[in-house]
Amino acid sequence: MTKAQIKFFQALSRQKYRKEYNAYLVEGYKNAKEWLQADCRISHIAASATWIADNRALIAAHPEATLIAAEDFELEKISALQTAQEVVLVVESPAQDTILPATGAWSLLLEKVQDPGNMGTIIRTADWFGISTIICSPDCVEVYNPKVVQATMGSLLRVRILEMELQDFLAQNQAPLYAACLSGEDIRNVQQPEPGIIAMGNESRGLSAGLLEAASHKITIPSRGRAESLNVSVATGIICAALTLQS
Amino acid sequence: MTKAQIKFFQALSRQKYRKEYNAYLVEGYKNAKEWLQADCRISHIAASATWIADNRALIAAHPEATLIAAEDFELEKISALQTAQEVVLVVESPAQDTILPATGAWSLLLEKVQDPGNMGTIIRTADWFGISTIICSPDCVEVYNPKVVQATMGSLLRVRILEMELQDFLAQNQAPLYAACLSGEDIRNVQQPEPGIIAMGNESRGLSAGLLEAASHKITIPSRGRAESLNVSVATGIICAALTLQS
Repeated sequence: MTKAQIKFFQALSRQKYRKEYNAYLVEGYKNAKEWLQADCRISHIAASATWIADNRALIAAHPEATLIAAEDFELEKISALQTAQEVVLVVESPAQDTILPATGAWSLLLEKVQDPGNMGTIIRTADWFGISTIICSPDCVEVYNPKVVQATMGSLLRVRILEMELQDFLAQNQAPLYAACLSGEDIRNVQQPEPGIIAMGNESRGLSAGLLEAASHKITIPSRGRAESLNVSVATGIICAALTLQS
Repeated sequence: MTKAQIKFFQALSRQKYRKEYNAYLVEGYKNAKEWLQADCRISHIAASATWIADNRALIAAHPEATLIAAEDFELEKISALQTAQEVVLVVESPAQDTILPATGAWSLLLEKVQDPGNMGTIIRTADWFGISTIICSPDCVEVYNPKVVQATMGSLLRVRILEMELQDFLAQNQAPLYAACLSGEDIRNVQQPEPGIIAMGNESRGLSAGLLEAASHKITIPSRGRAESLNVSVATGIICAALTLQS
């Protein structure tokens, strides 16, 4: 790899440069396959000679991409993850999405979710339950963070991410808003819910007072033990299962 | 801190030395508070002068502990986490637990769960649902790994961890065994389940054939979308909610 190429990949581990170059990194065998098979523009493929030899068909589908045979030490240099992977892609970010979710469908709304692993896992969970839109407050961790991308396991390609101020979203929203908190209605008692927005909050503080006030339903996962709270991605999964599998 | 103290703390970031010294690290404000309030033997407290000044009562409850006022650069050296914390404890590991779970209660069984974040989150989830025993195969990530401890948020103090060969456990187990897989019975159809063991498998491969054969029930979370699978800690949360909240 040239010095300039290494610098370019390394820059994309930072949000500032992802915005500037309008691109993000996708790392690892499984994820690279998902992205190369999807309909997205890939500008660079840096990979080990073995990976390149084994994946000619995937590479052939992306004539727009610069292909770079990289040495192990170079892959280590450009990886943004703790363990370097055999393949790293540079993918063009899609245009900012602004279309509001369809009425009659389930969506997720996330307020200040900070941990990249949680964000990625929530995107993957949404994809499992057929939730096609996630509204993120601007202070959520950016979804093109390499650790988020990694944790989505390809689901980032199938779930629309709408980044917008939540008060703007709520001002336009007509659908029921189900807000997760520690003192709401038992999720088991929410029978045949009308599809709407499931709102989940920050890892330590939960949803803000404003969000809870705007909610049509406050909902809670009953506890039988002594943990103070659940991890936000686990709570999201339990609530999505409880509500969306009814309809 | 003395060089020897720094070396001791650093050694405990490795499993080999945790076994040798029979001790593990607990880092950060919230976790330190949980551990200092619990009934456990603490051999060292290394903390910033501010933390020490603010937490005299907690410290007083542990006269057995060596108290070390540490500089920021020292805390950075001894931290096993990505971000150094203001307080790091050395806690004596409890004796290996060998008591099998009570019949009539829900337990979890984990086979080769590898990711420390997942393991910690699963322990926290078990605590939320009042599941007091987790059986771990010996090839699971060790629960005293600093990242596991961090993710449990104190629940490691309240959930018993039984590390044993799963075939030995299964040979003695009389309770129903609910095994998570991608082609089992829809969890919504498991009505009024008899409390038993919920078995969850490795992040990429799921449960082994042997475990699935031993299961009295194979269970599945229905999918509405296109993700290949769910994160194992999210799946554990959904299954625990679906089964244990019925009884």
